[in-house]
Amino acid sequence: MDIQTNWIKGFKFSAIAAGIKHADSDRLDLGLVAAEVPAVAAGVTTTNLVCAAPVEITRRCLKKGLCRAVLINSGNANAYTGDGGRLDALDLNLAVAHHLGTDLELVIPMSTGVIGNPLPKERMLQRIPELVLGVDRGSFGDVATAMMTTDTRPKTVCLDGWTSNGPFRILGMAKGAGMIAPNMATMLALILTDIRVEVSFLRESILYANSKSFNSITVDGDTSTNDTLVVLAGGAPDALELGPGRKDREIFSSMLDRACTDLARQIVLDGEGATKAVEVRVCGAPDENAARLVARAIAESPLVKSAFHGEDPNWGRIICSAGRAGVLFEPDRIDLFIGNVPIVRQGVLVQGDWESAAHEVMQAHEFSVLLDLKTGKGEAVMLTTDLSEEYVTINADYRS
Amino acid sequence: MDIQTNWIKGFKFSAIAAGIKHADSDRLDLGLVAAEVPAVAAGVTTTNLVCAAPVEITRRCLKKGLCRAVLINSGNANAYTGDGGRLDALDLNLAVAHHLGTDLELVIPMSTGVIGNPLPKERMLQRIPELVLGVDRGSFGDVATAMMTTDTRPKTVCLDGWTSNGPFRILGMAKGAGMIAPNMATMLALILTDIRVEVSFLRESILYANSKSFNSITVDGDTSTNDTLVVLAGGAPDALELGPGRKDREIFSSMLDRACTDLARQIVLDGEGATKAVEVRVCGAPDENAARLVARAIAESPLVKSAFHGEDPNWGRIICSAGRAGVLFEPDRIDLFIGNVPIVRQGVLVQGDWESAAHEVMQAHEFSVLLDLKTGKGEAVMLTTDLSEEYVTINADYRS
Repeated sequence: MDIQTNWIKGFKFSAIAAGIKHADSDRLDLGLVAAEVPAVAAGVTTTNLVCAAPVEITRRCLKKGLCRAVLINSGNANAYTGDGGRLDALDLNLAVAHHLGTDLELVIPMSTGVIGNPLPKERMLQRIPELVLGVDRGSFGDVATAMMTTDTRPKTVCLDGWTSNGPFRILGMAKGAGMIAPNMATMLALILTDIRVEVSFLRESILYANSKSFNSITVDGDTSTNDTLVVLAGGAPDALELGPGRKDREIFSSMLDRACTDLARQIVLDGEGATKAVEVRVCGAPDENAARLVARAIAESPLVKSAFHGEDPNWGRIICSAGRAGVLFEPDRIDLFIGNVPIVRQGVLVQGDWESAAHEVMQAHEFSVLLDLKTGKGEAVMLTTDLSEEYVTINADYRS
Repeated sequence: MDIQTNWIKGFKFSAIAAGIKHADSDRLDLGLVAAEVPAVAAGVTTTNLVCAAPVEITRRCLKKGLCRAVLINSGNANAYTGDGGRLDALDLNLAVAHHLGTDLELVIPMSTGVIGNPLPKERMLQRIPELVLGVDRGSFGDVATAMMTTDTRPKTVCLDGWTSNGPFRILGMAKGAGMIAPNMATMLALILTDIRVEVSFLRESILYANSKSFNSITVDGDTSTNDTLVVLAGGAPDALELGPGRKDREIFSSMLDRACTDLARQIVLDGEGATKAVEVRVCGAPDENAARLVARAIAESPLVKSAFHGEDPNWGRIICSAGRAGVLFEPDRIDLFIGNVPIVRQGVLVQGDWESAAHEVMQAHEFSVLLDLKTGKGEAVMLTTDLSEEYVTINADYRS
């Protein structure tokens, strides 16, 4: 990432090694994103009933729709830590607010790492002044690095757009969705834009973008206690305003979609033990929701994912997974493709050597599967990984 | 299995090597169970929308509630074979009915093996006379062997009970539920009893027994196109009748439960790549259905199953899976045990060295996990396996 794409008007960055997981580690694990003035905030948090303390606080902040700073740590999820965990998160937010000269309610906390352990709060509190002072020196990339857990690389995206009022930029960072040993990890994503957008439209846009991106990927079907996606719009006092025109709105929304989709794809490609990214497309379903159910059943089947790993065009498993998704369709009418190779047409296995052709498609690092149910207009796409022996090895490793 | 437990009044057995998967194989792959007179029949078939031709025929027979013979083959599931597959199944049934001197409608077909390929019908038809003639020589164990696919051993159970009218026996056979390379396999189970039971009570009993046994196990969460459970009651013209008394009914039902539970446990223990059988118990749920949802979410989580494999008491993954099951409970009140080791009490991680104690429990071949949600009286149990590298290797193997 060059210096150009590391910068966005109205936001500053800082990251330090606070020794959160291991006291003597020099790994970046505490990051801060600070807006010059309160930015418009919207987002989505985990649907898991068991949610972490920072998620509860984030929800309150998103309800108000304004945010001045995001405090991000890896190494400890502050999840399942009870009232003590809630107090810890508030104390840290208070310190950030105090040193930044802003309100407690304007700070969003994001945590990822081991669960069930209290944060090393005292150690973290001592470093907050230094962290806040660092915002004039730090970079976006440093914060993207500080949020990593088992991710093998930071995940960032930078997009530039043009509205009738002028240019704008979207910068995004995310960390992986694979749930990991020794405990669970989390999907965290933070999107920044220098254009100011009213909160209702920002909410609408991020919900839609999320459904098409982060909600359409699966590594292992587990939803973490800490999953959070936040977008902040307009961090500078003189931020450009998004105009009311329909065209401008569409440009902004589609750019936000692209940013989220790009980050989601990076997460899948960096999934635990993943060697392939597979796009599962379902069309012709009764409606979009039905299409999503079928796509998810296929994308999360361990049998299908094992076959992807073995580059085995095992169409029977794909159709069988579709059949148990709880969606009505006629098996005798469906079409199935792997890449551009037809496997089943009108419910009948095609003649000829589809098998070696499909096997060849599957040898690629990325490929797609298309199932057409022929009963309606519902469509959905899920991006998934293969299931490798490596995934099991990573996740079975006994904690040491 | 000794000769004693291989025998049941009113039923005869035959099995041959018909070369269904490979023409020159001498593996038993075609079996016949014949009752002396039409037996009362009840059962349960797959909920998968994509169901195989033999399943459609079985459903019609179970609707009438009478069955004279069950024709079982492995090596080919006759699934996704269209109208040709339906005709093949009927032709084979017709041959069996003809040689046994009974009606076509009284023959139940069960198939398991590769899908999408037509049965080698001609080869099978040629062998039907020999198969039917063999019923005076064959054994129950031979048929249990003929239904195997990747099962490493036949699965049978024999139980003797006593009602006020006299003694009765239940013999059961099953094959594995692991879905397998090169294509999918299936759970097939056939239970025989020498006591005659009216069809309404038999239906009620088998539905209940199924919910507590085969519907409470999971190897990989996939439901096959061919899953079938059938019980036949009273194969002899002078079969004992089950009396109308409540006590007799309870004895019969509990014996049927035990037979199904025993077979289901054997299936899990022989699951693909499984090294452990884990009982996931959920209690204190709002109702039984909620308990089942939570137990299933835990029992099917690849992360939880990987941790079982690694003998890692990763309680965070268990609670996280419970949290995404769609059931309301208060995370701050729950208790969690691994074996008899308390891990979480009233929503708080216990003090002391629970970790090494729980790790020790998990080193066993079989152990249990108990989650008490403390919100109601709903209970459910799921029996599951660990997720091993071996599972992936088996299922990723490219077809050769």
